[in-house]
Amino acid sequence: MASRIGEEIEISPVELASRLARKSKINLASGSPDPRLIPLEEIRRAYDEVIEKYKSAAFSYPGAGGQEELVKEIEMYLSKLGLNKGEDEVVVTSGAQHAMELLGKYFLEGDVIAVENPTFIETFNSLKLRSSSVIPISLDEKGIVMEQLRQMLKLVKVKLLYVIPNCHNPAGVNMSDDRRREIAELAEQYDFYVIEDDPYRPIAGEVPPPIKGYDRYGRVIYVSSFSKILAPGLRIGFILAKKEIAEKVSLLEQLDFSTSTINQYVVAMLLKNQVVTSRMGLLAGHYKRKLELMSKVLREEGFHRFNKAECGFFQLIDLEKDSWKVFQEAVKMGLSFVPAKPFFLKGGETMARLSVSVASEEEIVEGVRLLRKAVDKV
Amino acid sequence: MASRIGEEIEISPVELASRLARKSKINLASGSPDPRLIPLEEIRRAYDEVIEKYKSAAFSYPGAGGQEELVKEIEMYLSKLGLNKGEDEVVVTSGAQHAMELLGKYFLEGDVIAVENPTFIETFNSLKLRSSSVIPISLDEKGIVMEQLRQMLKLVKVKLLYVIPNCHNPAGVNMSDDRRREIAELAEQYDFYVIEDDPYRPIAGEVPPPIKGYDRYGRVIYVSSFSKILAPGLRIGFILAKKEIAEKVSLLEQLDFSTSTINQYVVAMLLKNQVVTSRMGLLAGHYKRKLELMSKVLREEGFHRFNKAECGFFQLIDLEKDSWKVFQEAVKMGLSFVPAKPFFLKGGETMARLSVSVASEEEIVEGVRLLRKAVDKV
Repeated sequence: MASRIGEEIEISPVELASRLARKSKINLASGSPDPRLIPLEEIRRAYDEVIEKYKSAAFSYPGAGGQEELVKEIEMYLSKLGLNKGEDEVVVTSGAQHAMELLGKYFLEGDVIAVENPTFIETFNSLKLRSSSVIPISLDEKGIVMEQLRQMLKLVKVKLLYVIPNCHNPAGVNMSDDRRREIAELAEQYDFYVIEDDPYRPIAGEVPPPIKGYDRYGRVIYVSSFSKILAPGLRIGFILAKKEIAEKVSLLEQLDFSTSTINQYVVAMLLKNQVVTSRMGLLAGHYKRKLELMSKVLREEGFHRFNKAECGFFQLIDLEKDSWKVFQEAVKMGLSFVPAKPFFLKGGETMARLSVSVASEEEIVEGVRLLRKAVDKV
Repeated sequence: MASRIGEEIEISPVELASRLARKSKINLASGSPDPRLIPLEEIRRAYDEVIEKYKSAAFSYPGAGGQEELVKEIEMYLSKLGLNKGEDEVVVTSGAQHAMELLGKYFLEGDVIAVENPTFIETFNSLKLRSSSVIPISLDEKGIVMEQLRQMLKLVKVKLLYVIPNCHNPAGVNMSDDRRREIAELAEQYDFYVIEDDPYRPIAGEVPPPIKGYDRYGRVIYVSSFSKILAPGLRIGFILAKKEIAEKVSLLEQLDFSTSTINQYVVAMLLKNQVVTSRMGLLAGHYKRKLELMSKVLREEGFHRFNKAECGFFQLIDLEKDSWKVFQEAVKMGLSFVPAKPFFLKGGETMARLSVSVASEEEIVEGVRLLRKAVDKV
């Protein structure tokens, strides 16, 4: 009775693991930012000030493409992300996930797409459900493996390439500068578009410029979000794309009209008041310290098969045993993480995604110790 | 380069008219609720209290299907809408428009659907863009014309019927009780689903029970919103549907993840504190008085070809002249309304949608006088 999407949609494995793990004492599964770092007081004050300033206008229907005040603030904020507006346009979305859904809707109808292997399955779903075929390209410690990408492009016509260049979810790595530059060129050469999913950049610290920064042909669609730097519950993100695409995508927003007007004003005010930009360094340092600690403890506990995560929330690691079985043992001990097979189009049975985002330093240490025990039990 | 939806999407005529009309002195075009009636202070307080009570949890990622606290409050609120939860499930959405987009995505893939003629084009777009064919069924002063509907069902297999039973947009009429009852039965007999789009019920005053109230077979999907009774800028609405559909639709929400967590808690609190229910009578009276005034002045100004709007925001009227030409004259005089042709799949060239929602009583009187002048000029 349902459409293809209606039939094929299923519960996300990440969501499933989080549900199973909800009662765990130590949470190395979460993709949410550290709740200790959500600027509650600043956000509360922003709601007050927005209601005081805009009154009922803060509660009217959102305009397609985003409230002008927020679009302007984002345009100024772009330089902090290593971007220039140039000829491109900003489209405000209800978070990066919503951006991906709009882009999937805009671009795809049974096309062939390419993605990193592994990739972030939840976001990627919007693309997968509208594609006929998905080609996985391996990742190494410098991001997508260019030789494989080039090889594939010679053989197959793809419509889109989807990549996460910074603090990769789940792999934790950053794409190297020269790969970014080359991807922008390949897109023109082989006539495809690049979706650059970059929600972690505001908390990434020093990383190479966005692929979008090398985009001379309007081939790159940049997606980011305020979920990591402010709070996911606001559901505000944005797309930067050439005018032709931006205009169509903002028309597609008429179909769901989902982006809260007041939350847009709140984020605009937090940008204006420097609450966003003043936190970037602090948050980058916070998560890097946690990741540093985790990799140290992993080594101490005899785990060695991983590329050290450089930023963001996630450390991907090879447990060298079926990670789903390890997960089941771990949950019994009060530890949760995400068995990473679902992030892989090929392989990944022994991989685990460990998150440092909500766990305290003590919990990270204790969590890795429990992980060792769980692995040894399998 | 784009998908069918990406190619076919265009600016909504309602949006277009509003843009053209933005500088008009008298606004009889708007579909927004009266800004004077948005409970700013109550909402501001709810934000404060939610942040105080839930702290960072108010800002985490939304759960698919909606925050438990809001789902529970909506379940209790259903009785105020003439509904029973029964075996059905509530799915929270980012407003009714988002609900329609989710339902379009769930049900449709090149199917045949039927709608009222006229219908609300913006909402309906999510269905139209995924259908192969759309069959228009006329409306009269008691809603959809049953004889036409029955006749059509004998000839054509439809997947969905989309109706707006209360305070129809743009037609202003209510569907009669016996038609509601019959539609629920026909859905089972002819194997189709009904989308009952009911955002106006909270401000409708006395109206017959929802079609969903007569639904013994799980054939009716009920959609409502807090946009009219509270504020559109919160972007909170909901679906009530049988479990099988509700579960799939909440999985589809994973694709856009667009519903603000904190706004869900805010609406839950406003439901709990009776801010929603205590306003229903007040708002119904307010809009009815305005509609009453408008129909009186319309008659005084020599307009007679309309079914008197019973509730909500809109009065549909036949100007007996090309309404787009009248619109152009009206805008010159400082009056805006929506030429209603785009709401019609058949006919409608001389129809105009007049809104009472944001205009004051003086503006309604003055607006109708200007309309007379504009009509006379064409």
